[in-house]
Amino acid sequence: MQPELEDIKALTFDVFGTVVDFRGSIIRECREFGKARGLRVNWAKFADAWRAGYRPAMDRVGRGELPWTRIDDLHRMILEDLLVKFRINGLTEDEKVHLNRVWHRLKSWPDTVRGLKRLKKRYIITTLSNGNTSLLVNMAKHAGLPWDCVFSAETFHHYKPDPETYLGAAALLDLKPEQVMMVAAHKHDLRAAAKNGLRTAFVRRPHEHGRNRGKDLEDDPGFTINANDFIDLACQLGC
Amino acid sequence: MQPELEDIKALTFDVFGTVVDFRGSIIRECREFGKARGLRVNWAKFADAWRAGYRPAMDRVGRGELPWTRIDDLHRMILEDLLVKFRINGLTEDEKVHLNRVWHRLKSWPDTVRGLKRLKKRYIITTLSNGNTSLLVNMAKHAGLPWDCVFSAETFHHYKPDPETYLGAAALLDLKPEQVMMVAAHKHDLRAAAKNGLRTAFVRRPHEHGRNRGKDLEDDPGFTINANDFIDLACQLGC
Repeated sequence: MQPELEDIKALTFDVFGTVVDFRGSIIRECREFGKARGLRVNWAKFADAWRAGYRPAMDRVGRGELPWTRIDDLHRMILEDLLVKFRINGLTEDEKVHLNRVWHRLKSWPDTVRGLKRLKKRYIITTLSNGNTSLLVNMAKHAGLPWDCVFSAETFHHYKPDPETYLGAAALLDLKPEQVMMVAAHKHDLRAAAKNGLRTAFVRRPHEHGRNRGKDLEDDPGFTINANDFIDLACQLGC
Repeated sequence: MQPELEDIKALTFDVFGTVVDFRGSIIRECREFGKARGLRVNWAKFADAWRAGYRPAMDRVGRGELPWTRIDDLHRMILEDLLVKFRINGLTEDEKVHLNRVWHRLKSWPDTVRGLKRLKKRYIITTLSNGNTSLLVNMAKHAGLPWDCVFSAETFHHYKPDPETYLGAAALLDLKPEQVMMVAAHKHDLRAAAKNGLRTAFVRRPHEHGRNRGKDLEDDPGFTINANDFIDLACQLGC
């Protein structure tokens, strides 16, 4: 093992895209929903638009245009716009609540649970996600994700990539930043973690944006580890 | 099942005394430590004194005499006094750090893990302890406690029985207070939880203060459930 890996005690995981297949999950569930109601909607475009609204919504919180707002509520704001745009009419409040909570029911990638179980034997494994706590806890129950703890932007009232999230996770675990490794499929997340002193593991998720529509999947020697999936990550960490 | 139990989605657990046997664990570990160093100390009195310093220390935080301070640091302040009082001299800083972290290595009661695993199948199970996050996470790794998430006084910067802790846990789980049941061996904790709208489960721990030195172990019909241990609790909840 590389010497810089020996001190690592905890792995903090990005969730949407890294741990779970949000796009595939949303498309599958919404397609069923649409079929039952006789709706003709391009659910792939719908899923992409929902996700595309996410970063701008968090940025509004970051700039102080919105007070602290959980992802569940940001997702709901975006959903309201999408229902108009995609001409989905007549949903009851209960149906909207259920639809919005599809984000609590996302499915993991095939290697996720097996990889996490191996990694958990040696490391503290925790979420470090912009999703809110209840979303992450419900998702974990649903998908069998064996987290040791659940850290969220909500824990810190800051969204990634704000330093408060990466440093806050290390502080809550009473670890130095270099004892914590951020695991993510997104290089910008890892670069922000590295800037705050964390170790980094890039995990390629080539199907995050649709079958083989991945971009920027190359190894980057600037990261501590580059891995093909969570099993490969476990192998490289000697788990 | 009683109708008021049907809506419960999450169980929040007091930890010291309820989930783990802090007194027995500290006595056992300190006795080994003392033997190795040739110390003659009454470790039962030492453990009791350490625990007795805990509530007054938290109250100093509550009254604003101390800024927010984690239990690890309060335990260390108390420990420094005890080392003088019990005439334990010449410990290195590393030895003090290790000794103070005995609270991270507490052993669970015999029924704890089996009971939690049953309860976890139906409910979200989380700590709601005055212990800090890293203490609770390390303890869970050590004792195999299968928490879905770890909530701590540190999460809310308030110690129990402040309302912020009980209501904060419900809010983070996006549940109403009455959908959450506080589980504890201490009636004052449960009464504070009930005052804030949570359901309550009293679990008798007759050996918390030493073999059969338990006090106030009677059922109280004011609590939603009274149970003999976590297995009995699981049975009463139909798990």
